[in-house]
Amino acid sequence: MANSIPDNFRDLFQKKAFGQLATLMKDGTPQVTPVWFDFDGTHVRVNSAKGRVKDKNVRRNPQVAITVQDPDNPYRYIAVRGTVVDISESGADVHIDSLAKKYLDQDKYPFRQPGEVRVVYKIRLDNVSTMG
Amino acid sequence: MANSIPDNFRDLFQKKAFGQLATLMKDGTPQVTPVWFDFDGTHVRVNSAKGRVKDKNVRRNPQVAITVQDPDNPYRYIAVRGTVVDISESGADVHIDSLAKKYLDQDKYPFRQPGEVRVVYKIRLDNVSTMG
Repeated sequence: MANSIPDNFRDLFQKKAFGQLATLMKDGTPQVTPVWFDFDGTHVRVNSAKGRVKDKNVRRNPQVAITVQDPDNPYRYIAVRGTVVDISESGADVHIDSLAKKYLDQDKYPFRQPGEVRVVYKIRLDNVSTMG
Repeated sequence: MANSIPDNFRDLFQKKAFGQLATLMKDGTPQVTPVWFDFDGTHVRVNSAKGRVKDKNVRRNPQVAITVQDPDNPYRYIAVRGTVVDISESGADVHIDSLAKKYLDQDKYPFRQPGEVRVVYKIRLDNVSTMG
């Protein structure tokens, strides 16, 4: 029951590992999608676009979970339960470009849609558990 | 908004892909863990042990989600929202052995703990969405 990332699991935040983000639907039931993410030293950050299911869900209920499996050893993972404590459009375009760099080795996010408003979400780590 | 697995995504249920299972904690917040799973043609089936967090969670609240990312293309995935409609110890040992065969190519599940009671959970597909 910790609320920080153990040193021996920080490598998972550097690898091109996806996060599996759970958010809560309007009726309180969970949904899970794979997401790009990074870690700013304090918060896990994910990026979505305004109006999407994830965006609507966390604005309604900021309770989330994100789990990262080691791509090199699926029996090793870190499971975070947390709270979205900041939702911002400011810096979200720069942030998605930095994630494109991490995951695709491209300087610019290549999947941007016309009219899309990017949003960055900061997740506070309320409970961190590890396996493996 | 479908409640069955599209034919062109059935391969994800044959590959050694992990499921990312979200369950709800007592306070209604989500948690996510990677799990072995299979599909019996109607239900997604997962296997855990009596008394674990997942086991307690789904007995309290059967609303879950499970998402499966294609190991060969992370931008292709299937996201299921569902309900645990059956919880059974009967057949759970045979089932975990069959999952060991699928994921480890071993006839017997090698991680069994003394005193552990295996449980199989059948998840009804309430909503299925796909990407990629």
